[in-house]
Amino acid sequence: MSKIVLGGNQYGKAETHVVRIDKSGARHEIKDLNVSVALAGDFADAHLTGDNSNVVPTDTQKNTVFAFANEPMGEIEDFGLRLARHFVREFATVKRARVSIEEFGWSRLGDHAFARAGAERRLATVTSTRDGDWVVGGITDLVVLKTTDSEFHGYIKDRYTTLPETHDRVMATSLTARWRFARTDADWKECYPSIVGALTKTFAGHYSLSLQQTLYEMGKGVLEARPEVAEIRLAMPNKHHFVVDLSPFDLRNENEVFYASDRPYGLIEGTVTRDDAPEAGQAW
Amino acid sequence: MSKIVLGGNQYGKAETHVVRIDKSGARHEIKDLNVSVALAGDFADAHLTGDNSNVVPTDTQKNTVFAFANEPMGEIEDFGLRLARHFVREFATVKRARVSIEEFGWSRLGDHAFARAGAERRLATVTSTRDGDWVVGGITDLVVLKTTDSEFHGYIKDRYTTLPETHDRVMATSLTARWRFARTDADWKECYPSIVGALTKTFAGHYSLSLQQTLYEMGKGVLEARPEVAEIRLAMPNKHHFVVDLSPFDLRNENEVFYASDRPYGLIEGTVTRDDAPEAGQAW
Amino acid sequence: MSKIVLGGNQYGKAETHVVRIDKSGARHEIKDLNVSVALAGDFADAHLTGDNSNVVPTDTQKNTVFAFANEPMGEIEDFGLRLARHFVREFATVKRARVSIEEFGWSRLGDHAFARAGAERRLATVTSTRDGDWVVGGITDLVVLKTTDSEFHGYIKDRYTTLPETHDRVMATSLTARWRFARTDADWKECYPSIVGALTKTFAGHYSLSLQQTLYEMGKGVLEARPEVAEIRLAMPNKHHFVVDLSPFDLRNENEVFYASDRPYGLIEGTVTRDDAPEAGQAW
Amino acid sequence: MSKIVLGGNQYGKAETHVVRIDKSGARHEIKDLNVSVALAGDFADAHLTGDNSNVVPTDTQKNTVFAFANEPMGEIEDFGLRLARHFVREFATVKRARVSIEEFGWSRLGDHAFARAGAERRLATVTSTRDGDWVVGGITDLVVLKTTDSEFHGYIKDRYTTLPETHDRVMATSLTARWRFARTDADWKECYPSIVGALTKTFAGHYSLSLQQTLYEMGKGVLEARPEVAEIRLAMPNKHHFVVDLSPFDLRNENEVFYASDRPYGLIEGTVTRDDAPEAGQAW
Repeated sequence: MSKIVLGGNQYGKAETHVVRIDKSGARHEIKDLNVSVALAGDFADAHLTGDNSNVVPTDTQKNTVFAFANEPMGEIEDFGLRLARHFVREFATVKRARVSIEEFGWSRLGDHAFARAGAERRLATVTSTRDGDWVVGGITDLVVLKTTDSEFHGYIKDRYTTLPETHDRVMATSLTARWRFARTDADWKECYPSIVGALTKTFAGHYSLSLQQTLYEMGKGVLEARPEVAEIRLAMPNKHHFVVDLSPFDLRNENEVFYASDRPYGLIEGTVTRDDAPEAGQAW
Repeated sequence: MSKIVLGGNQYGKAETHVVRIDKSGARHEIKDLNVSVALAGDFADAHLTGDNSNVVPTDTQKNTVFAFANEPMGEIEDFGLRLARHFVREFATVKRARVSIEEFGWSRLGDHAFARAGAERRLATVTSTRDGDWVVGGITDLVVLKTTDSEFHGYIKDRYTTLPETHDRVMATSLTARWRFARTDADWKECYPSIVGALTKTFAGHYSLSLQQTLYEMGKGVLEARPEVAEIRLAMPNKHHFVVDLSPFDLRNENEVFYASDRPYGLIEGTVTRDDAPEAGQAW
Repeated sequence: MSKIVLGGNQYGKAETHVVRIDKSGARHEIKDLNVSVALAGDFADAHLTGDNSNVVPTDTQKNTVFAFANEPMGEIEDFGLRLARHFVREFATVKRARVSIEEFGWSRLGDHAFARAGAERRLATVTSTRDGDWVVGGITDLVVLKTTDSEFHGYIKDRYTTLPETHDRVMATSLTARWRFARTDADWKECYPSIVGALTKTFAGHYSLSLQQTLYEMGKGVLEARPEVAEIRLAMPNKHHFVVDLSPFDLRNENEVFYASDRPYGLIEGTVTRDDAPEAGQAW
Repeated sequence: MSKIVLGGNQYGKAETHVVRIDKSGARHEIKDLNVSVALAGDFADAHLTGDNSNVVPTDTQKNTVFAFANEPMGEIEDFGLRLARHFVREFATVKRARVSIEEFGWSRLGDHAFARAGAERRLATVTSTRDGDWVVGGITDLVVLKTTDSEFHGYIKDRYTTLPETHDRVMATSLTARWRFARTDADWKECYPSIVGALTKTFAGHYSLSLQQTLYEMGKGVLEARPEVAEIRLAMPNKHHFVVDLSPFDLRNENEVFYASDRPYGLIEGTVTRDDAPEAGQAW
């Protein structure tokens, strides 16, 4: 008869929302982070008998986030590395620490005032073990739209196909991209705008025959621009904009009026990588 | 014995998400609107007997939104006025039409490409009756934060008071403001950035002794800047940023590390108006 | 020239999420409430000069909610009355206190364990002034659907009408209903299930010619069942379920397969009242 | 120099919300499903050159969901199997089809009327390849709470630890559990309530020394009850309920008044499996 056993597990404090204001200069600086920690290691006893002697409480993890925020944070990749390494080094029972951070952007209104900038958030996931560290950067909820230069045709037709081919459609997506760095000492501050710039520039300039092609080109653009990036994973929901049929009203819609649909949506996911990319290890 | 009767009522199609792309020039222009219509009038029969002979179906309202979007829209106040007047003029049974629009902003990536700009949305509510029209503009979800120049003290203390007075706190809010215009032919295009600019400039520059004071000053700033505005209503949740006590860790938090709390939050609501403002009528 | 003045205003602590566990018996009881307080009164100075000497801090309001929760709460109408009256009686500067509560339901799993019951929440809004108190009960997010016994036809047709008439459709809504009590000492515990039962029974049993008619009948059913209720306001989004056209696939959809659409949706709002209902005063 | 290449990818139509009403009997039956399809296979050309000749459009996938819903659906595991196998069998370019379904529950109000039951949803993920099929069942957003029989102590203390040990706390979570079946012909209809019953019974009855222990016991309970289940993965956010300190108000909180916090929260994730469980293959 089969025996019941504990499989993979991790735990941690999720979504500690910490804001650090740097008041050292005349112009204050703000870092606004949502930090999640997940630890894996020797936690079988906590599961099997409720013996917590190997457990670092999630409350302590939260306190640690706040305490570490008392020093200048640097970029979120830096802050994640410091935190993740701390948990692995400090606690013998912690074999892997993963710190996931989302950063909210602010634009300046004055020396001491800011407005939230954009709905997109910058992401970092740092994973540390005894054997090394991995850094994954990213962005989520970056909504982009192009009004033309997008076609879709030549696909398989079967009994259930009703979609007409199109040679001019609106393409819109809410991009999530996550890129794995080949190193842990990249110039994070320079990389982020450079990568996001490569993504948006390709999106805007590429003539698209499918959302898959656009995804690939966007990923390729990043890898071409940044040698530090080993691999990039993109998720691009196809936020459909349907041309409204105005003919019942004796109007001619010259491909100008669209209904923006919520659901269902296409979801295109893909990875662009290098043939000589280092192993991903525990990065993801 | 009391008789049961029908009271106030209205109905309409909510959240028609229409996007118009103007392709007349080399650089495409985009208008991205979420339009809600609500009609009031002679609809007692539909309620009492299910006789729909006075009813304009909500589906027709949606079609009308799309059809009207086939012409250049102008500003959302213009588009709302055209739509609201249409329903009142076209249908004898419609005594009041209210069109509420939220507009999503886009920033340009190229001639034919855009990125969603900000999480805030521009608002307009236009109400039309046989007796006239009212236009209310607005903005929602504009998240702003100031890192200093905010105090809070001198308040009532009672048995349940534990809040310490403060002479330097973070002040943050997600602003919703709605302003009633004194006329229906204002320069909407100029007004919106001017009003938002007055709001953010006051928020950034004002030395605050209470969120109520900041709210009042922000409203006053708008009324001083724009004679077209008769009244402004502001709702400002106090998004608390608590100073984290790091003393248990032998650290000194120099008012730099904050915990951004979700709930509960303060909610400050107020109106700033003119002593000679025209009657609000059915504007709100 | 016009003078800028302060208009209507209120402030308070919103969404204090308090849970009380009654452990006095062998079977524990749970009350899970989200409580919002809003105070109006003599707060001009706080707005105009930042003088807070009339202000009860929202933090104190939160503390008061927790402190009052240390005694058995009774029904949410009771708890709201105690809280609202406290603020008006205790503070001369508070002219009106409004306490809005949403209650999350729990179903029992055991003597000391519970599962969240339903997505709907029970509501109460209690308003107190020197002149009296008003109690409004309610429910929100009660999703109901009927598979037949719903028609829609006989409506106005115009240039923009494309909707076909129907004699058998799915009707679905996410009901929000709020009922004003004619008294402040009703049997709240008995009223709530009785009112919700009247709403669902009418929805299920009524043969509908329009959503307006269903709304009216539902309100009427409540007023007939409960003399304590002076008035009821209902908001019923028409959550459209469209019959999917399967004819392109040589299939016949016998009105059985539907696409559940998110947006746009119809929004039907109406009040059912008594001809001799007492004045609403500041209830809403 | 490194070469840029396409990595793993998949695409499909997400969140087709289909409702099927079975009207064959006097009492109508309802199935309310949100269906997402993801296909993997020979789609390199679509990415590299925009050649879509291997692509089944996501619009066709949506149509297929609706068409298949025209026959009695059975349980969601059945419906998922039919859909996933269809895509793999019908299209040579599709190597793997994954169909993820969430089902909304309804409770009966009458022969033809229903109310949405609970906020939790039943889940199924079916994956099909040329080599076989995998079925994963599940539940999400099942909110449960126990008022006692939960301790937490004996954990690691370090410089950043402030959490006091507790021997009586509230434990609450919003459970997501997903269980992998060892076979593709289980009695899905019987399994689901049986598994959910095992989960809630263990949660309610177990005396907990840590959330990890509760998680493990809940998984073990399922595996003991259902031989068809090879493995179960649970994610349990620790929805903290903090005892409110009422001592500043000269009140004694007998562990009865709690503040329900939103964020941060603990997140406990773990797998319970059998030592002889069949390989997971492409199930997850």
